[in-house]
Amino acid sequence: HLQNNNFACIMLLICKTQLFLAYTQSNINILKFTHLPHLAGTEQNLKYAEQIKNEWQEFGLDSVEMVPYDVLLSYPNKSQPNYISIVDHIGNEVFKTSLAEPVPQGYEDIPNIVPPYSAFSAKGQPEGDLVYVNYGRTEDFFQLERQMGINVTGKIVIVRYGKIFRGNKVKNAILAGAKGIIMFSDPADYWAAEVQPYPDGWNLPGGGAQRGNVLNLNGAGDPLTPGYPAKEYTHRFSLEDGVGLPKIPVHPIGFHDAIHLNMGGEIPPNNWKGALNVSYMIGPGFTDDFKSQKVRMNIYTNNQVTRIYNVIGRIRGALEPDRYVILGGHRDAWVFGGIDPMSGAAVVHETVRSCVCVCLGWKPRRTIIFASWDAEEFGLLGSTEWAEDNAKLLQERAVAYINADSAIEGECVYIASPEEGEDGVSLYDSWHKRDNWTNDRDAPRISKLGSGSDFEAYFIRLGIAAGRARYTKNKKTERYSSYPVYHSVYETFEIVEKFYDPSFRRLRAVAQVRGGLIFLLADSQLLPLDVNQYADSLRKYAQSIAQLAQKNPNEMETYGVSFDSLFSAVENFTVAATDFHERLEILNTADPLQVRIMNDQLMYLERAFIDPLGLPGRPFYRHVIFAPSSHNKYAGESFPGIYDALFDIENSADPEKAWEEVKRQISIAAFTVNAAAMTLTPPA
Amino acid sequence: HLQNNNFACIMLLICKTQLFLAYTQSNINILKFTHLPHLAGTEQNLKYAEQIKNEWQEFGLDSVEMVPYDVLLSYPNKSQPNYISIVDHIGNEVFKTSLAEPVPQGYEDIPNIVPPYSAFSAKGQPEGDLVYVNYGRTEDFFQLERQMGINVTGKIVIVRYGKIFRGNKVKNAILAGAKGIIMFSDPADYWAAEVQPYPDGWNLPGGGAQRGNVLNLNGAGDPLTPGYPAKEYTHRFSLEDGVGLPKIPVHPIGFHDAIHLNMGGEIPPNNWKGALNVSYMIGPGFTDDFKSQKVRMNIYTNNQVTRIYNVIGRIRGALEPDRYVILGGHRDAWVFGGIDPMSGAAVVHETVRSCVCVCLGWKPRRTIIFASWDAEEFGLLGSTEWAEDNAKLLQERAVAYINADSAIEGECVYIASPEEGEDGVSLYDSWHKRDNWTNDRDAPRISKLGSGSDFEAYFIRLGIAAGRARYTKNKKTERYSSYPVYHSVYETFEIVEKFYDPSFRRLRAVAQVRGGLIFLLADSQLLPLDVNQYADSLRKYAQSIAQLAQKNPNEMETYGVSFDSLFSAVENFTVAATDFHERLEILNTADPLQVRIMNDQLMYLERAFIDPLGLPGRPFYRHVIFAPSSHNKYAGESFPGIYDALFDIENSADPEKAWEEVKRQISIAAFTVNAAAMTLTPPA
Repeated sequence: HLQNNNFACIMLLICKTQLFLAYTQSNINILKFTHLPHLAGTEQNLKYAEQIKNEWQEFGLDSVEMVPYDVLLSYPNKSQPNYISIVDHIGNEVFKTSLAEPVPQGYEDIPNIVPPYSAFSAKGQPEGDLVYVNYGRTEDFFQLERQMGINVTGKIVIVRYGKIFRGNKVKNAILAGAKGIIMFSDPADYWAAEVQPYPDGWNLPGGGAQRGNVLNLNGAGDPLTPGYPAKEYTHRFSLEDGVGLPKIPVHPIGFHDAIHLNMGGEIPPNNWKGALNVSYMIGPGFTDDFKSQKVRMNIYTNNQVTRIYNVIGRIRGALEPDRYVILGGHRDAWVFGGIDPMSGAAVVHETVRSCVCVCLGWKPRRTIIFASWDAEEFGLLGSTEWAEDNAKLLQERAVAYINADSAIEGECVYIASPEEGEDGVSLYDSWHKRDNWTNDRDAPRISKLGSGSDFEAYFIRLGIAAGRARYTKNKKTERYSSYPVYHSVYETFEIVEKFYDPSFRRLRAVAQVRGGLIFLLADSQLLPLDVNQYADSLRKYAQSIAQLAQKNPNEMETYGVSFDSLFSAVENFTVAATDFHERLEILNTADPLQVRIMNDQLMYLERAFIDPLGLPGRPFYRHVIFAPSSHNKYAGESFPGIYDALFDIENSADPEKAWEEVKRQISIAAFTVNAAAMTLTPPA
Repeated sequence: HLQNNNFACIMLLICKTQLFLAYTQSNINILKFTHLPHLAGTEQNLKYAEQIKNEWQEFGLDSVEMVPYDVLLSYPNKSQPNYISIVDHIGNEVFKTSLAEPVPQGYEDIPNIVPPYSAFSAKGQPEGDLVYVNYGRTEDFFQLERQMGINVTGKIVIVRYGKIFRGNKVKNAILAGAKGIIMFSDPADYWAAEVQPYPDGWNLPGGGAQRGNVLNLNGAGDPLTPGYPAKEYTHRFSLEDGVGLPKIPVHPIGFHDAIHLNMGGEIPPNNWKGALNVSYMIGPGFTDDFKSQKVRMNIYTNNQVTRIYNVIGRIRGALEPDRYVILGGHRDAWVFGGIDPMSGAAVVHETVRSCVCVCLGWKPRRTIIFASWDAEEFGLLGSTEWAEDNAKLLQERAVAYINADSAIEGECVYIASPEEGEDGVSLYDSWHKRDNWTNDRDAPRISKLGSGSDFEAYFIRLGIAAGRARYTKNKKTERYSSYPVYHSVYETFEIVEKFYDPSFRRLRAVAQVRGGLIFLLADSQLLPLDVNQYADSLRKYAQSIAQLAQKNPNEMETYGVSFDSLFSAVENFTVAATDFHERLEILNTADPLQVRIMNDQLMYLERAFIDPLGLPGRPFYRHVIFAPSSHNKYAGESFPGIYDALFDIENSADPEKAWEEVKRQISIAAFTVNAAAMTLTPPA
């Protein structure tokens, strides 16, 4: 499963990388880094950083350094645990949620397992009626408020995990006036049929819960130092002025606990009917029996500025040391990180090893930078701070960024070349066969990049071509986001070894794809980027957004809204792209300056989509073509400025002003696409 | 008189450009473009554009194009002229200011001479007491309000021209609550001793007045399309939401009229004691006799979106066509533009001609772009729109921008190599001898770039190294801003021919300097930029701003304000600069990629000082080291973010918050200088 269009072409070239790929072993032993909890900011995560640094040095990188930042992290208070309770009419706590997950066998004596919590939750003990709001999506709150006439002001909301990034749920609850929000993993979403809970299968046990940060950073990185790296000397905002910190308490629970709040105590999982099957309901237990009870949240989580460590390694480019190809993935985990992130970190580690093998006595054309990011789980902090620190270099020199977060999120549902019975079938063909794009494009599907991992600052803020590739599940049949045990204590080495990739052949395949991308980007004389693909996508996105606007044909006419300028710009881009590739065909590749000039055009194309003014209200989301959805950070939105201007426009209080903003956003998009097209024309 | 440090080194190399300079003739005949008024947006200015385009094509440029934009301009209402009147107690207008300047001999039949006006003034007929506020500077208003206790709310203010940009005067008047503002040229500022008024000398006649725009754009360009080029399809803000448009009427008058408002009717110029000699006064005439009278402004000026035309010509670079060296100057004039801008436009024209002569059958290494900008007088609109239109190309490809506005603003006060009696003395030595930098730097003085001409968007917004050079007056002895007839109808061809440069040798010298800069920048294998000079300047600026802060030693201690991080960053930059030049010495210049890589480091250094977030409240001023002063657009301020945070901090309502902002700005400056230093280190 590959994301971002620019990279489609690379897959076609992957067979050229046999030299490199031959060195990629199945020996993905970095999963040894999963035996101890290594939360960002802890001693253990620093130890793993030092170990990685040492191993990369031994592998033979030209340089390896630890790069620290002091960022805002958030931990539960060890002496005052977080929990939710049901309080009866005389104030007694008649039920309390569990303080920790049952620890899996073999890990009983491991210290420092952080209990499930919502990082950066506000502190507080709000008490009130409970309102269930489905997934907590924008449309769920709209339905609650507009169709059911229910106001959650001053109430506590409970939502189920899934569909969208949890930070968006929290934001929606705050906007709706809630004074607290509880999130739980509904078996309807997190329970695969016919699969046992861990350790007998890969389903989430009823006592498990999903940790995660609940920030709305919109790409700012460290909440206290938006726009600048969090160095020792850096000025920090006060917590009150910090970016994206929720002002209400937030807490995650497992479904064994959720039952008590929602259903009055039925037995899971077989009798579980799930929130999915009920409508919107009010009050603990959602039944009249419990009307006199209230829910209390007891949250004591602390924010604190904490030192984190990225590990940055380099192989110096032989011919163009000032051109950077970056492979980065995070190292910090909520607990053991068996899948997230270590299945990705293993790939980076393996790529470093293989690449240096390849490079013995021989260097790639361009510089390769490897990164082991810290504090991804706390808002992509390590990668964003490094991007801020190095922005001036990266905007001039970075060719591409490849992300290496979890390498797998599905198991045997999806079978490809490393699979049994596919001998001789290429990964590309296997992928193509299983997930064709659409009816009108015969190629493997590539999704838009959203966010939720460390590529964000590189792609959305700096405009560096970026991509990610992983083994995934069949999204049509598997409802859950990511995978059932996501961010729980059950993400162990054993779950990978037993269920997700027993032979580690899938991890090897992902290492080969990610490593192959790096190899081709770093060593091809001409950058393996296809701008015609970008033109195709721009056309599709333009058609799609124009179609969305056409839901309001009368307003389009009344306010004179037209997409002509955008379509004309896309046409200009298409012509420029075609011409560019024609010139590329006849390029004198013996002339190093001519090669560099065209490569620069390829490299800087993505930069041309950056608007320094940013998207409305989101100054660090600056890519005019792609941004994380305003309603779900995980999802990518195309032409996000126009999309957001059109969103819910039917209910706008001032339609004229709202449609003016649509027109302004169309104008910005048209200008940007035209300007990007200009960068592809002959340079003088 | 040269501006911007990076270019000091170029002067040292200027002797290498003999080939080019030999072709620079004294035949500066573009002054023929001064016979008819050519205000931006008028037919005549388009005709001149077409003529320039045709001549550049004939000279042999590789391409020449007209580039139109539709920007907001502002013209007096032809059927309802603007004027100021004195109104007696029964409402009769007992005095009216003149509707036009007396036209100089020989120009009596010329149509379309726009009368003196303040472009973009609000319409209106405010009536009220008149308060004189000296130059209308921030400190003048502070003195009026704080020391004299005079409140101008609801009153009309009158200020004299000079010291600061007129738009800042208007902004100050608005902030003080005035309902109108009148500006006049005080002979104390605009009347050189022993010099006759035009046509017998170069002083401003009493009936002359200074036109000019009164915007506070802060680099936005067209007020209705900030951040984006004003194309046909571009979305425009309403006039209400436009950037920088004053909300009160503004009008300029000559001193013959000013006397009636200020002095009750004495005879100029010999008896003129000047506003300079009086203190702050209230009321028309400033005497008790006139207390019952009020002043009325009658302003009918219209804003209208109007098409303007830049002319853009190119010589394609032979080896690096994707590296741009730009020479630009404006063409539009308030009336004839004898000095402003045609003495500058003449230089561009002559440089095009000479350069093509040089280049017959031979091309410069890099692409040279020549620009004849339109609508500079209306807020640098032509140059800023083109910068916005081409921002994506320029940020990747522009090496430097050289500005060519008025080439002369002094006459015989200053004598240099083109002068009589300096045969064999180089211009550099002549300059050096007459204006040594300071006691601790033995070099000709180079001032900071402020704004007020077309380099602004290139330097301050995009971070392209920029410079300007002109013949100037002795600033120690000549008090007036620019020159007495500035922006009046008396700026004719004849004033140049008779007084400023009778032999046109000074214009030729300026053409040789500006052309020489272009030639060296475009054709040197290694860019002629000296980063050690930048290090020196950074150290001076850091010392200077730290010294300013030290005026408040107690607060520095109370709030823990330290400049250590900035000094440490400057030290890092200094070391990086020295090392860089050492590596440059041993560069293998036979390797085109190695040369390109180091040139890229030189080119992108200026870009590294750009902060995409901009300065507080000034999103289009993004250079952390230089910005136009917040109190005078003409002047350059170093470390403007820190400077503005410190400004008037003694009177801050919330000192803790104010000093936090100082600390934040120091942190931003330190980060930026450190980051710029990193760009100079070996690239991998």
